[in-house]
Amino acid sequence: MGHTSVTSPRRISPRGSPPHLRRTPPKYRKVLVLKEKRSAEPEDPVMDELLLSSKLKRVDSATGCVSPRVPAVDALPSAVSVPRPAQKAPKTPYVILPACDTFEKFRKISRVSVDIGGTLIKVVYSSVMDDELPEESLNGHTRKYAYEDGKRVLVNFKKFTDLDRLIAFLKEVWTDRKSGDVIHCTGGGSYKYSEIIMKELGVRLQRTDEMRSLIFGVNFLLSTNVDESFTYHHDAIGINKFQYRPIAADLIYPFLLVNIGTGISILKVDSPTSYERVGGSSMGGGTFMGLGSLLTPAQNFDELLEMANRGDHRNVDKLVCDIYGGAYDELGLKADLIAGSMAKCNRFGEAPMKQTHKPEDIAKSLLLMVSNNIGQMAYLYGTRYNLKRIYFGGYFIRQDPITMRTLSFAINYWSKGEIEALYLKHEGYLGAMGSFLDEDGKLDD
Amino acid sequence: MGHTSVTSPRRISPRGSPPHLRRTPPKYRKVLVLKEKRSAEPEDPVMDELLLSSKLKRVDSATGCVSPRVPAVDALPSAVSVPRPAQKAPKTPYVILPACDTFEKFRKISRVSVDIGGTLIKVVYSSVMDDELPEESLNGHTRKYAYEDGKRVLVNFKKFTDLDRLIAFLKEVWTDRKSGDVIHCTGGGSYKYSEIIMKELGVRLQRTDEMRSLIFGVNFLLSTNVDESFTYHHDAIGINKFQYRPIAADLIYPFLLVNIGTGISILKVDSPTSYERVGGSSMGGGTFMGLGSLLTPAQNFDELLEMANRGDHRNVDKLVCDIYGGAYDELGLKADLIAGSMAKCNRFGEAPMKQTHKPEDIAKSLLLMVSNNIGQMAYLYGTRYNLKRIYFGGYFIRQDPITMRTLSFAINYWSKGEIEALYLKHEGYLGAMGSFLDEDGKLDD
Repeated sequence: MGHTSVTSPRRISPRGSPPHLRRTPPKYRKVLVLKEKRSAEPEDPVMDELLLSSKLKRVDSATGCVSPRVPAVDALPSAVSVPRPAQKAPKTPYVILPACDTFEKFRKISRVSVDIGGTLIKVVYSSVMDDELPEESLNGHTRKYAYEDGKRVLVNFKKFTDLDRLIAFLKEVWTDRKSGDVIHCTGGGSYKYSEIIMKELGVRLQRTDEMRSLIFGVNFLLSTNVDESFTYHHDAIGINKFQYRPIAADLIYPFLLVNIGTGISILKVDSPTSYERVGGSSMGGGTFMGLGSLLTPAQNFDELLEMANRGDHRNVDKLVCDIYGGAYDELGLKADLIAGSMAKCNRFGEAPMKQTHKPEDIAKSLLLMVSNNIGQMAYLYGTRYNLKRIYFGGYFIRQDPITMRTLSFAINYWSKGEIEALYLKHEGYLGAMGSFLDEDGKLDD
Repeated sequence: MGHTSVTSPRRISPRGSPPHLRRTPPKYRKVLVLKEKRSAEPEDPVMDELLLSSKLKRVDSATGCVSPRVPAVDALPSAVSVPRPAQKAPKTPYVILPACDTFEKFRKISRVSVDIGGTLIKVVYSSVMDDELPEESLNGHTRKYAYEDGKRVLVNFKKFTDLDRLIAFLKEVWTDRKSGDVIHCTGGGSYKYSEIIMKELGVRLQRTDEMRSLIFGVNFLLSTNVDESFTYHHDAIGINKFQYRPIAADLIYPFLLVNIGTGISILKVDSPTSYERVGGSSMGGGTFMGLGSLLTPAQNFDELLEMANRGDHRNVDKLVCDIYGGAYDELGLKADLIAGSMAKCNRFGEAPMKQTHKPEDIAKSLLLMVSNNIGQMAYLYGTRYNLKRIYFGGYFIRQDPITMRTLSFAINYWSKGEIEALYLKHEGYLGAMGSFLDEDGKLDD
């Protein structure tokens, strides 16, 4: 499977970040499906640039050891504002697989895996690139990436909101598929949609366990992609808001994994093969999007997030000061703490006229409500199992500053700084990534 | 302070249940403020009758010991369907105070306490009744209730949604107040509204600590009102859904108290004077009412609850079967488990036409979402502090079957039956009751 149709501009992204959900308006969608790959995608926003920059401070997650900052490579300082020259690499995010025996087979046979969740479909697929990458694009990575013939194997990341688009995309990029080939598949939809996938693509479906795939994915990304995980520091300025948290492969376990999809799943992970789903909640991304759909005119998740970033939740939430007239010092409750989410929208005690609330304010309140709740629950499970690191997965956070600030604040506040909230650049692809790697799935044919 | 204006029909309710929020439509409200007390209130619904019946099964909460059912008194079996004869007792809920030195003073001086929360104002006030109550009205209570002169001291319970109505009510019933008298006051609004209360009623205000008041209230009600707490069993039939859980006064502690107001507060209680607010959440009654106000035409909390009781959440929630096509057996997730609250209302992946969802279904989903979340959080804190009994306070539950079922299910499910969810007949009056009893408040004059 090659990326034959990829044209410029291409971006060097050896530790590429997840793509953004940029949906074309529904009425044009069908027409654009096949063109989408070829059209130039908008540049990622500044935050992605920042996260790709190796100048960020690195604090070893296990030891707390601060690494000296890696000197900036020539091209990067200006990359924040000036588009970089086109490179012969996919424009969608990717990770280069280390050149080793385990991955050597992907030089000859493509592999595709999909994770079909309640809201999104995530795809991870291999491709081979035979152009030589400029050294600096590896950002200080020292592992061997090129095989003897100069070829590199990449895993690429892409997501969809519906099955038809996924199938059209795979038909186009998975050109070397044969009838004996398998597509790795995980997530709830791997049961529901297995027949249509097999029929449309003419391949067999190998279903991998969802939780196992998640763990495999985290394990691979944390141990292979040096800058995969980071912490968020809202009060810092610019790039200092983000700190990479590399961790040695033998120190990764144990940890708590909070996977935020439609709802949330909370996993206690002791090793790649020893883990337990210790809890879950129905309040996840699906709740934010469902309530956001009903209460705002946003047309997609990113619009809703962007709306939330402009909103002021104090217009719709009841704060401690709204009830107490100030802080409640005896209990250590600050005046601006949220006492009741959305509680100012209660019109039951009011005159029967229609109150108006700005959709931006509602979006912000909903985002804080869901994020706070996830943060608090994550803290409670983390404490219960004495785990000091909580990784967040799933396609909810999207490096959104409000969400990360809220989650980090909740975990820091409740744990009194004992537990660390960690984010993953490929948060949405953990299941698909793990399914890609898992050879022990069950054939569904 | 006497109940001079009370007319028939009166109800015998020695362990009276909290009143229901029956608001007159907003446009008539002002006119009806003073008439309200004199108008005949609608009969309480069947569930209240059931809860007042002493035929209910009693299981001692500390020992698990099942008491033989108290034989039904003559009047009660028919009381469910036929209105009982009028009795000379207040028509609003009340508890008779045991005749003892502590409460003797209330024969001569009225006491009033108010708990001003973010949404509701709860009042507890004493009155003296000199009519003799028929023995059976005490439902097997063996303590001494009448003083030598035949008089009994009652504490009465009433709630309001706005301050003006509260003040008008108190001006009318608190007839023996003098300028040196104090009104006990707790809750957030005791700071915010102290001046207006003092000015309007011409009394001093004695503020009691909110958490201490809550605990005092629970302690008094559990140790004085035999049938105060009960468990809920949804799959049982009729009155067997409710089981009284009396507990000996010396076995009450420790327990977890989850107070559900606008938001929630979670208290670990080791004794009447040793307790700690260990957690809280902004997702409480205020969230349910705020979102319910925006998304349904309900005019008050009871209408919203009633709407929820008619709704089918499966039309708006994504269930496990919606994602997996069935149960997810490997994880023990049943097909009808809610995977994502409100997640079917997400129109981001759909054609851009307006989806319609029934307000009843939305109300049900919101109630389940908030209740599930509270139940899970209560379980997590209960487990953390190794507490086997969780009492729910605040004015959110209102003996609503969906709410109690959800809370009980969540706690039973997550704790594997180790922790008991207990409800309180006077759930909404814990703070006001405790403030009534607390002599150590701080004068605000």
